[in-house]
Amino acid sequence: MTNFDKTHLNRVRRMSERGHYDASTIYPIIDEALICHVGFIEDGRPFVIPTIHARIGDAIVIHGAKASRLLKHAGAGNELCVTITILDGLVMARSVFHHSMNYRSVVLFGKGELIDDPDERLQAMTAVTEHIMPGRWADARGPNELELSATTIVRMPIEMASAKVRTGPPGDDDEDYGLDVWAGVIPIHQHIGQPLDDPKRTHDVAVPDYIRRYGRTLSATVARDAT
Amino acid sequence: MTNFDKTHLNRVRRMSERGHYDASTIYPIIDEALICHVGFIEDGRPFVIPTIHARIGDAIVIHGAKASRLLKHAGAGNELCVTITILDGLVMARSVFHHSMNYRSVVLFGKGELIDDPDERLQAMTAVTEHIMPGRWADARGPNELELSATTIVRMPIEMASAKVRTGPPGDDDEDYGLDVWAGVIPIHQHIGQPLDDPKRTHDVAVPDYIRRYGRTLSATVARDAT
Repeated sequence: MTNFDKTHLNRVRRMSERGHYDASTIYPIIDEALICHVGFIEDGRPFVIPTIHARIGDAIVIHGAKASRLLKHAGAGNELCVTITILDGLVMARSVFHHSMNYRSVVLFGKGELIDDPDERLQAMTAVTEHIMPGRWADARGPNELELSATTIVRMPIEMASAKVRTGPPGDDDEDYGLDVWAGVIPIHQHIGQPLDDPKRTHDVAVPDYIRRYGRTLSATVARDAT
Repeated sequence: MTNFDKTHLNRVRRMSERGHYDASTIYPIIDEALICHVGFIEDGRPFVIPTIHARIGDAIVIHGAKASRLLKHAGAGNELCVTITILDGLVMARSVFHHSMNYRSVVLFGKGELIDDPDERLQAMTAVTEHIMPGRWADARGPNELELSATTIVRMPIEMASAKVRTGPPGDDDEDYGLDVWAGVIPIHQHIGQPLDDPKRTHDVAVPDYIRRYGRTLSATVARDAT
């Protein structure tokens, strides 16, 4: 797998021991997160917009309506910064100063490019749908011509990348361990609730296995909370 | 409370019926979220960095180490975009095209300014700590002179703001309701786990009430999942 060079742009400066530059750390964070935040510049101003994503090899793909500011801008070849953050816990130290969070975040840099080829467009749409809900693409009604023509799909080959990861208990100053202040970690994870049937359904359809299994799949990540 | 003007910058263009410009919608989203994503421009490139925040009146405050790229840049008076996203559910439609997410997001624009005044600095640090864990500031050891001098605190008065909110079941095309495809919402919320004692503790300290109560406080938001 890819390893990214440390450069002026992606080098983790603060707490550099938390920095990672290998795809084997970075890509699983991208793949686990349900959303990303895309940064771009328009009229000299920074914009940050949340969206759904998928990874195909060494590229991020995003999609949306043709009219969207994000997609218009991303598809025009501009520099993008895609940031993904997964929160794993609140770190309560004895001193206010050493409070922190346990998290896994990645910062990705690259330029957006429109995907025009029909097969590549379908591949990207499949990847985004399957990223959110594996098994869904084969079950739901696929896009028709009108829907395809209303959708812009953008690929951002990852030029530079870094991850920053904090795990484990608080790190207090030596002289603070004797204080009568509770310290430790409060784990946080995304909880997947029971599927709620569409109240507008015209007939009953059983919840498919891939949706029933979904919460259990994600809960595998909860073990990571136990620092 | 404040209402923000709709401008070229903050107007929600796509799905404009999901756009909100009133502080009574925007501020609770800021206050509930544990982290934000801050966008800024450096050397003509967009950067997006996750961080902890708090709201004081009509301003966002963030803090961090003096050496941090984000804090250096934010404190220098540059344009910032602060985006906050809370994910509430996966929306499974009968057609791939109408898949969506339930979410509450805000996009805030403004310029950063260093907070220099010692009292205002302490007020901001208190706000950030209490934002994450109400009750913690009075319990943990407060910052000493060395820690204070190592910390940069930046205020961003909110000049423009908008929220985008999606709730409820999928909206499918009329002719798709007869398909044998399960449709509905899969609720998602942040689950707060049981506090884990610091394994490096030198003596036992009971978990304080404000930490025990924490999960129960947040779980009040879960009711919102039930669309």
